[in-house]
Amino acid sequence: MAAADNSKFPLVVVVGGGFGGIQVAKHLANQPVEVLLLDKHNYHVFQPLLYQVATGSIEAESIAFSLRKTFEGQKNFKFRIAEVSGINTENNTINTTIGEIAYDYLVIATGSTTNFFGNKDIEHFAMPMKSIPEALNLRYLMLQNMEEAVLAKTPEERAALLNFVLVGAGPTGVELAGALAEYRNHVLCKDYPELSKDDMKVYLVDFLPKVLGPMSDEASAAAKDFLVKMGVDVLLNVKVESYDGQVIKFADGREIATKSVIWSAGVMGVVPEGIAKENLERGNRIRTNDRCVVAGTSNVFAIGDVGAMITPDTPKGLPGVAQTAIQQGEYVAKTITQIISGKPTAPFKYNDKGSMATIGRNKAVADIGKIKFQGFFAWLIWMFIHLISLLGFRNKVIVFINWLINYMHYNGGTRLIIRRFVREALPQESLEAQKKELEKQQTEVAHLPKSDA
Amino acid sequence: MAAADNSKFPLVVVVGGGFGGIQVAKHLANQPVEVLLLDKHNYHVFQPLLYQVATGSIEAESIAFSLRKTFEGQKNFKFRIAEVSGINTENNTINTTIGEIAYDYLVIATGSTTNFFGNKDIEHFAMPMKSIPEALNLRYLMLQNMEEAVLAKTPEERAALLNFVLVGAGPTGVELAGALAEYRNHVLCKDYPELSKDDMKVYLVDFLPKVLGPMSDEASAAAKDFLVKMGVDVLLNVKVESYDGQVIKFADGREIATKSVIWSAGVMGVVPEGIAKENLERGNRIRTNDRCVVAGTSNVFAIGDVGAMITPDTPKGLPGVAQTAIQQGEYVAKTITQIISGKPTAPFKYNDKGSMATIGRNKAVADIGKIKFQGFFAWLIWMFIHLISLLGFRNKVIVFINWLINYMHYNGGTRLIIRRFVREALPQESLEAQKKELEKQQTEVAHLPKSDA
Repeated sequence: MAAADNSKFPLVVVVGGGFGGIQVAKHLANQPVEVLLLDKHNYHVFQPLLYQVATGSIEAESIAFSLRKTFEGQKNFKFRIAEVSGINTENNTINTTIGEIAYDYLVIATGSTTNFFGNKDIEHFAMPMKSIPEALNLRYLMLQNMEEAVLAKTPEERAALLNFVLVGAGPTGVELAGALAEYRNHVLCKDYPELSKDDMKVYLVDFLPKVLGPMSDEASAAAKDFLVKMGVDVLLNVKVESYDGQVIKFADGREIATKSVIWSAGVMGVVPEGIAKENLERGNRIRTNDRCVVAGTSNVFAIGDVGAMITPDTPKGLPGVAQTAIQQGEYVAKTITQIISGKPTAPFKYNDKGSMATIGRNKAVADIGKIKFQGFFAWLIWMFIHLISLLGFRNKVIVFINWLINYMHYNGGTRLIIRRFVREALPQESLEAQKKELEKQQTEVAHLPKSDA
Repeated sequence: MAAADNSKFPLVVVVGGGFGGIQVAKHLANQPVEVLLLDKHNYHVFQPLLYQVATGSIEAESIAFSLRKTFEGQKNFKFRIAEVSGINTENNTINTTIGEIAYDYLVIATGSTTNFFGNKDIEHFAMPMKSIPEALNLRYLMLQNMEEAVLAKTPEERAALLNFVLVGAGPTGVELAGALAEYRNHVLCKDYPELSKDDMKVYLVDFLPKVLGPMSDEASAAAKDFLVKMGVDVLLNVKVESYDGQVIKFADGREIATKSVIWSAGVMGVVPEGIAKENLERGNRIRTNDRCVVAGTSNVFAIGDVGAMITPDTPKGLPGVAQTAIQQGEYVAKTITQIISGKPTAPFKYNDKGSMATIGRNKAVADIGKIKFQGFFAWLIWMFIHLISLLGFRNKVIVFINWLINYMHYNGGTRLIIRRFVREALPQESLEAQKKELEKQQTEVAHLPKSDA
C-alpha cells in the first residue's frame, strides 16, 4: 500500500466515512499529517433521513455524498474503498481488502449495525434499515407488497401483505411509523384504488413502556399521541419472541400475520478483528478512556457509535447519536495534532445539544436542554437543522424541493420498484436445521401405527 | 384475472408503459372502454435522458414516473405489474405472470431491447443501456473502474480500466461519449488526484462512415467535430469483431484493451410468443398495416419500437423514436374508439417533428424540417424540449436544478456506488466450452514429452 510511502509526515488512517470519520479527516487538513480514509462505500450517508429514503420521499442520492468530492482539494488526504478485516495494534498495521497498511495513528470510526440480539430467524426475515441499500430494499418490498395485495386471493393473504410491524420505538421506528401512516392516510388509495385505507395497518412495538425511550416524558407522550391519532397501533411493554417471515409472535402470546417486519430495536458496534474481547462493552462497543484512546494503546482511537467512553461521569458511555461522533471526530483530530506537536491533551467533553424526532407533517418533538416543545415549531426546527446538516449544496436544494412538493400535496415522492427485493435463500445452517426437523418428523410419522389409508 | 369481469365495456389491454403505451391509456380516458395496462415495472422511463443517469448527472428517479400515479383518478384504468409470455390471437387471450387475461383489444407496446446481433460474448461482457437498472449498473461500473485504476499495479492494467469504448454512434452513443468526455475533462482529476486526464480515453465506434447516421450531414459533421474537440476518439467505418471482457477486436485488426464496452449499436423489438414468424420484420419488429393493426388480426395493434408499419410510403417502417410511439399511441386510442362506435377509421400519418442530439454543454445538433442548426441555440432547445417532455412537475424541477448546478460548476451530479456492479457468472454453455478448452489443453500438455522439472 503506497499511501504512506515517501511521506515525511505521520499517517493517520481513519476507518469509516460516517459522521465521526469525516470530521477527523476534515480537521486534519493543513496539519503536518497524511490522512488516509477507508470506507467500504465511496459515500457518506446522512443516516437521520434514511427513513425518508425508505418511504420514497427523497432520493437516496440526496442523503449520500461522495467522500472523494467532500475532500476535493485537501492535499494531505487520500481515500480508498476498502474493508478492514483485522487490526494489529502491536505492529501498528491493519489488514484490509486492498492489502496491509501501516499506520502511525488509527481512528476506528466504523459505526454500528443492526443488532438482532442473536436471533437468526429475525435477522433473516426482518428488514434492517441502517444503510442506503437496506433503505431501498425496504422501499421496494413495501411497494411489492402493495402490488401483491391487489392480487391477493384471500383477505388473510392481503392483510399479511399490508400489516407493517416496526420493532423498536426509537427515533427510527417512530419516524418510519409516522411516514408509513401518512402514506396510508393520504397516498394508498390514490395509487391503489383497489385497496382501502383500512386494509393497511402500521404497528410500532417496543419492550419499553414508552416510545423514544431516552427522550423526556413530555416528548414521549406527545410522540405517542401523534402516532395514535395518525392511526398507528402502538404496542408498548411488548417483547418480540419470533418471526418466521409469516407471523410475528410476542411474549404475551399475541401474534400478527405480516410479510414486513422492520427491525430497529437495537444497534451494535462494527468492530474489526484484533480488539481484545475484554475491551468490548455492552453493544459491542470499544471501551476508550476520556481521550477516545482504546485501552492498551496510545495511538488507536475509537469514536462515535463504535466507541464507549467509560468514565466516572459516563459509566455507560455516551449516546449513540450523530453529535457524539461529530464532536469526537473533531476532538480526535485536535488531539492527534497536539500529540504530534508535543502539546498536552485535554479530555473530551460532550456537549449535549438535545434531541429531536419528527412524526409527520407539522408534528415533531424536541428536548433542547431544559426546553421541551412539541408540534409545528419543533417540526420547523427539525427540518431546518436536518437541511443545514446535509452535506452539499445540491443535496440541500433537492431535499428542500422534495419536502416543499410533498408539503404542497402529500403525493410527492417516488414510488418506483427499481430493483425488485428478493430475500436471499435461508443460510445453510438454517436449511440444515429445517432438513433435520423434517427428517425427525418423518421418522416420527414412520413410527406411528399405520392407518388404513 | 378479474380486470374484465362484470364490465359492460370492452377491455383494452395495453402491454408496456413506455411512450406509446401511456398515450393509448391516456387517450382512452372517459371512453366507453376498460383499460388494463401491464408492464414489468411500475414506472415509465424517459429513455432520452438515460445516459445522464448512467453518468450520474441526474437521479434515476427523476426520469422515471410511477405508472399508477400517472393515471391517478382515471376511472376506467387498471394497472398490474406483469410480463406477457404469450399471445393467442385466435382466442383473444394473453398469458402473463399473473395469469391468463382475455382482451377485446390488445395493444402491443413492448418497445425494444439491445440487439447484440447474436454475439453471445459481447452480450455477456458489454454493457447495454436501455433500462434504469442497466444505466445504474453502468454508472457503478465506471466508478468502480476509477477506484480500481487508482490501485492498478501496471500502466496496462490502469489503461484497460480507463479505456471506455462505446459501440454505436447513434444519439445514445454520441450523448454518452460527450458526457464521458466532460467527466474526463472537468471532474476526473478533482475526484481522483491520483489520476491524470490523459489516463482516461473515450472511444466512439461505428461501422457507418458517420455519427448520428439518420441525421443530416451537417448535424453529423458538427457532432463529430464537437466530439473530437472534446477529446473523444471517433472511429468510423469500423466493425467490432469480438469482446471477451479484456480486449475489443475490430475487423481491421485493431484492438483496444478495455474493461468497459458500452453497446448501443442496435435495438430489436421485444415480441411476445404467439406472433407468427412471417409477421416479423428486420429488427424483430411486428409488421402492421397503416392502421397499426397486426397482420391476420383486426383487434391487435403494435406501436412504437416493436411495430413496423410497412406501407408503400414507408417500406422500412417508421423511425424507432419516441415521436413514433407517442403519435401511434394517440392514434390507436382514437382508432379503437372509432371502431367501437362504428365510425370509419383513417390511416396513421406520421408527423416528423425532427431530431436532435446533445453532445455537451452548449453543444447540440438539430434537424427540424429543412432547418438545420448546431451549437448553443440547439442545446437550449434540446434542454427545453426534454424538460417539458418529462412526466411530473417534481421531475421537471429536480432535473432543471440538477442541470443548473451542473452548469454553474461541472462538478454536480452524484458519483456514488450504491450497489456494486458484479457481472454474473458466464452462462453455463460458455463455462462448459471453457472447461472443454481447458481439458483439451491439459490433454495436449499430458502428451508433451516430459521435462526434467
